[in-house]
Amino acid sequence: MALADASEDYLNKSAQNGTPKPLLELYVKASGIDSRRIGACIFCQEFWMELFALYEVGVVRVEVKTVNINSEVFKRNFLGAQPPIMIEEEKGVTYSDNREIEGRIFHLAKDFRVPLFEKDISVEKSIQNLYRNFKVFLTAKVDHDKQTKQQTPIEGLPPQIAASHNKLVEQLASIDSLLAERKSRYLVGHDMTQYDCELLPRLHHMRIIGRHLLNFDIPPGLIYLWNYILTGYRTAAFIESCPADQDIVHHYKEQVKIFTNQRETLQAPTKTHTLPEDVLHEIRRHGLDA
Amino acid sequence: MALADASEDYLNKSAQNGTPKPLLELYVKASGIDSRRIGACIFCQEFWMELFALYEVGVVRVEVKTVNINSEVFKRNFLGAQPPIMIEEEKGVTYSDNREIEGRIFHLAKDFRVPLFEKDISVEKSIQNLYRNFKVFLTAKVDHDKQTKQQTPIEGLPPQIAASHNKLVEQLASIDSLLAERKSRYLVGHDMTQYDCELLPRLHHMRIIGRHLLNFDIPPGLIYLWNYILTGYRTAAFIESCPADQDIVHHYKEQVKIFTNQRETLQAPTKTHTLPEDVLHEIRRHGLDA
Repeated sequence: MALADASEDYLNKSAQNGTPKPLLELYVKASGIDSRRIGACIFCQEFWMELFALYEVGVVRVEVKTVNINSEVFKRNFLGAQPPIMIEEEKGVTYSDNREIEGRIFHLAKDFRVPLFEKDISVEKSIQNLYRNFKVFLTAKVDHDKQTKQQTPIEGLPPQIAASHNKLVEQLASIDSLLAERKSRYLVGHDMTQYDCELLPRLHHMRIIGRHLLNFDIPPGLIYLWNYILTGYRTAAFIESCPADQDIVHHYKEQVKIFTNQRETLQAPTKTHTLPEDVLHEIRRHGLDA
Repeated sequence: MALADASEDYLNKSAQNGTPKPLLELYVKASGIDSRRIGACIFCQEFWMELFALYEVGVVRVEVKTVNINSEVFKRNFLGAQPPIMIEEEKGVTYSDNREIEGRIFHLAKDFRVPLFEKDISVEKSIQNLYRNFKVFLTAKVDHDKQTKQQTPIEGLPPQIAASHNKLVEQLASIDSLLAERKSRYLVGHDMTQYDCELLPRLHHMRIIGRHLLNFDIPPGLIYLWNYILTGYRTAAFIESCPADQDIVHHYKEQVKIFTNQRETLQAPTKTHTLPEDVLHEIRRHGLDA
């Protein structure tokens, strides 16, 4: 069975003791540009980051494989299941539902005392629905731009679309405040948790899509949020699992049906993992720099 | 926004006290035959059953809507999200991930002390991977039948496919044993729990698809399992949320790419919610009858 189009192994062979570590295979959605490249699947990246965290502390072995969901081989073998899909061959178990995947990772983290699933209600509330709010703004803005046949600047948007923009920015600002208050590296504290695995990919998508399709950027004044994004760009679990800009843009263009002359498909894949100069300067002036 | 193709309301207006009950809208996948009909989506039915249970005890109001996932309106409004999707308008929250949907239902059940999420490790283990095992058998058998251009009876299958059949039957037998031991109405006890919302739709699919596409039936000797299925057929939460046989068959035929002359698309929708006569007779002889 040639299921996967590309794979990355973390087969950390230096087991700490005699018992072999569980081997988890994660099937993630491939890019629509090249099925050997990682696609812009939010849930795939979230679980990949969590598994990476477990791998880093020597708890599991991980193999990540990209799959082209439109290929007949994939459809035939997973009959309707969609990535992310996790397989634990030794136990003969396939986890094809996000609840099952998270459940398994949760138990591994618990058994090996990795504080990946610390509960934090304030954090939970502050990030809830952020991505949905972004998508509401995205759809409204893209529709408007299609009608007016130009990329309207944010200031020139009609009231309803401006409202969806403002709602998004308000929520980003409240996450910025939370981070400013806590002065923590990640959302909960010094260590990366499930909330970061959820939020960082979403923020990165907003940034990339904002710039390429929406004339929108995360406000430069939100330096605690930007500094948090910078932390992401320096976190191996994030970097490894992050799709290229071109693959992210391609994914959203397909969803909102934008066809432009800018051909991501022909470009060499690049990843924007740096901050705008002025923002970085402000961060350093405040003595933050992750 | 005309998002839904059909809807069913449970707007239970007789509130027990002054505070209005939360209104939860569940978007479920429509049938590929008719987008006003319920499609054969396992997770959709699972959450529908859970919400129905909360509705029955007067905790929530529920509105279920079928959505055609291929429609442009749906794609535009949910940008890549797939059913089941749950919306709680009053809170302005969209739950588009199974973990989020279950999380919300879990908290409602907890707040109102509905024992929907009793934990039971034996049950969990016994049903884990059942559906995956069924799909392995389904794919292998269908491929074989395509090659031989006939529906091979189970006894005539080559060893590897026979093995996938046996594995499935063994697991069904172990669930039968668990039910025999417990002598309980549902998997955990007298009340329906999450495990039943998971297992009953899957068993029903196996039964319908077994008969229509596989020359397979749940062994008649597993009377505790059959009696449990009968319990499902007498459970309002199951009956209400269950797709018609034709819609189930259509769903799987699409997945395994079977094109036959039997046109489910033209038939009036019917639901098989009765047991075979001989099985029912055995159940009664054992004094079981749910």
